[in-house]
Amino acid sequence: MITNGNSSSNDPDFICDPVIVVHGGAWKIPSDIHEHSALGVRDAAVTGHRVLKNGGSCIDAVVKAVEALEDNPYFDAGHGSVLNEAGEVEMHALVMRGDTCDMGGCLCVKHVKNPVKAARLILDESHHCLLSGEAALTLARQHGLEERPLEYFITDESRKEMKDYKNYSASIHELFDSQDGHDTVGAVALDCHGNLACATSTGGINAQKVGRISDSPIGGSGGFADNNSIAVSTTGHGESIMKVNLARMISMYVEHGMSPQQATMKSLNHMKARVGGSGGAISVDGSGRVGVHFTTQNMSWARVGGKFQNETTYSNDCVQFGTDCTNFRTEKI
Amino acid sequence: MITNGNSSSNDPDFICDPVIVVHGGAWKIPSDIHEHSALGVRDAAVTGHRVLKNGGSCIDAVVKAVEALEDNPYFDAGHGSVLNEAGEVEMHALVMRGDTCDMGGCLCVKHVKNPVKAARLILDESHHCLLSGEAALTLARQHGLEERPLEYFITDESRKEMKDYKNYSASIHELFDSQDGHDTVGAVALDCHGNLACATSTGGINAQKVGRISDSPIGGSGGFADNNSIAVSTTGHGESIMKVNLARMISMYVEHGMSPQQATMKSLNHMKARVGGSGGAISVDGSGRVGVHFTTQNMSWARVGGKFQNETTYSNDCVQFGTDCTNFRTEKI
Repeated sequence: MITNGNSSSNDPDFICDPVIVVHGGAWKIPSDIHEHSALGVRDAAVTGHRVLKNGGSCIDAVVKAVEALEDNPYFDAGHGSVLNEAGEVEMHALVMRGDTCDMGGCLCVKHVKNPVKAARLILDESHHCLLSGEAALTLARQHGLEERPLEYFITDESRKEMKDYKNYSASIHELFDSQDGHDTVGAVALDCHGNLACATSTGGINAQKVGRISDSPIGGSGGFADNNSIAVSTTGHGESIMKVNLARMISMYVEHGMSPQQATMKSLNHMKARVGGSGGAISVDGSGRVGVHFTTQNMSWARVGGKFQNETTYSNDCVQFGTDCTNFRTEKI
Repeated sequence: MITNGNSSSNDPDFICDPVIVVHGGAWKIPSDIHEHSALGVRDAAVTGHRVLKNGGSCIDAVVKAVEALEDNPYFDAGHGSVLNEAGEVEMHALVMRGDTCDMGGCLCVKHVKNPVKAARLILDESHHCLLSGEAALTLARQHGLEERPLEYFITDESRKEMKDYKNYSASIHELFDSQDGHDTVGAVALDCHGNLACATSTGGINAQKVGRISDSPIGGSGGFADNNSIAVSTTGHGESIMKVNLARMISMYVEHGMSPQQATMKSLNHMKARVGGSGGAISVDGSGRVGVHFTTQNMSWARVGGKFQNETTYSNDCVQFGTDCTNFRTEKI
């Protein structure tokens, strides 16, 4: 296990300083929800980092951060999910832990307030990795996860996107790059024990067919975590992400010696060139190096801890956040 | 595009000699179905190769070969699928083309006689990559695909496996390595135009939960195809295959310079070491180099054309087949 060796704690169980990175989706974020999106990822990162700072596991931290984003109506996951062609909501989520490479994914789930918690249940309680909607709902009910009626998940923003979509005849690729929208959420973390984890959650693509599976619940596409390489969460045009296995591609480049940032950029550029799809990804490795990149107009993201680009030191007492890779804000936490 | 430059045809559209490789699942094949399994993959490879020899596309060839295996009761796909915990059959299939990296996958499908044809429909007719059972069935019905009642898919062999499973308390990993069974089918091909494709189809794992998703319909896990690297189809313990993204891993190793055989062996060994899972895979690249490897006791496989291990020449007029990598038969076709 590679660790950053930066632990500032006296607790011998703290072998490295924790890191969390979250994203709120890669797309063209409408101007009226720009600030909400930036503040939403900031708060989710701080929430997840609190778990890590108290010695909690990376898996608890990424689930907590994603749960906060699912509850926030400005993101396409949980409350705020986009509508499918039938005007309903089908949600998908993934959780993966880098120590064992175990994963839990649920797809086309309805009613579960926090799909990421259903994914966590599959990870912890099932010897399968991936369960479809009814099976995931049954497991969620057995464990008493909170449920909500359909109306809870639908917001004015998702209704507006559906209406705009019906007035718009562009291809899905053009739509992704240029039309206003909101997208998938995710988080990656390195905990003080040196373990990596990722979580991703989505309501899918606006006006998708009933039963369309997003990339988000698929290990290797929507996310990937292995202590020997990296934790990744992806967002963007799901079909393109699946065609190149974006998350696994990033991890393989890291295994071959690239930094998380180089690997994330190279893989997203490959996706654009090979299958024409835009998107974004966040990543962190066992030494706390962070990757954040996107080929869409925006991606809201935030992080606490770790080393980004050419930084040589950690800053555990502040959160960085924004909707751009070069123009972001820093606040004390 | 890399081609093998071995074309023996006078047709200028034939830029290389075609290759097909098929598998009938990696597991411990029971002695009483050993010969049926070997002959089944032989016939499927010959059927697929006939398509290629006549100038047909790799995608037509892999679908035709997998269709033959789905119709054969000795394999866990289509007619002959294993039973889930409810005593029913849910099937999964994937088709991927290496020229565009487009893919079609269907999961938890019922009634469709040939799930690989439903996957092909998703590839050709939908702008989504992956559809769940009801959505795939609706599309299949719109296009008039053949359907069968549940009883058609269930065989004496699958009933026996279910009964044996209920008398057996070992873990799924032990079960996979040592108990008699039959598994997933798949095919990879290089056509005379230099294009690559893969197809995979399965009834899943014996006694699986209702709604459990197999690795087989997931691009990057159950299969992968990109003209710039390789076409792969995998088989074995599905959860392990998903945890390492076996097919994408093999393709990435080829992109980094390994031969298909080296990449296939290295990735299967990684899967065993990292997550404890056994399985197998077949692969072919644009220069006709073939990879065949498994870490289970057996895998039935067959191929026509291409270069395997240390071979330097092609043999397009015979089929090689067997349930072992070193002890196989060769027949004129």
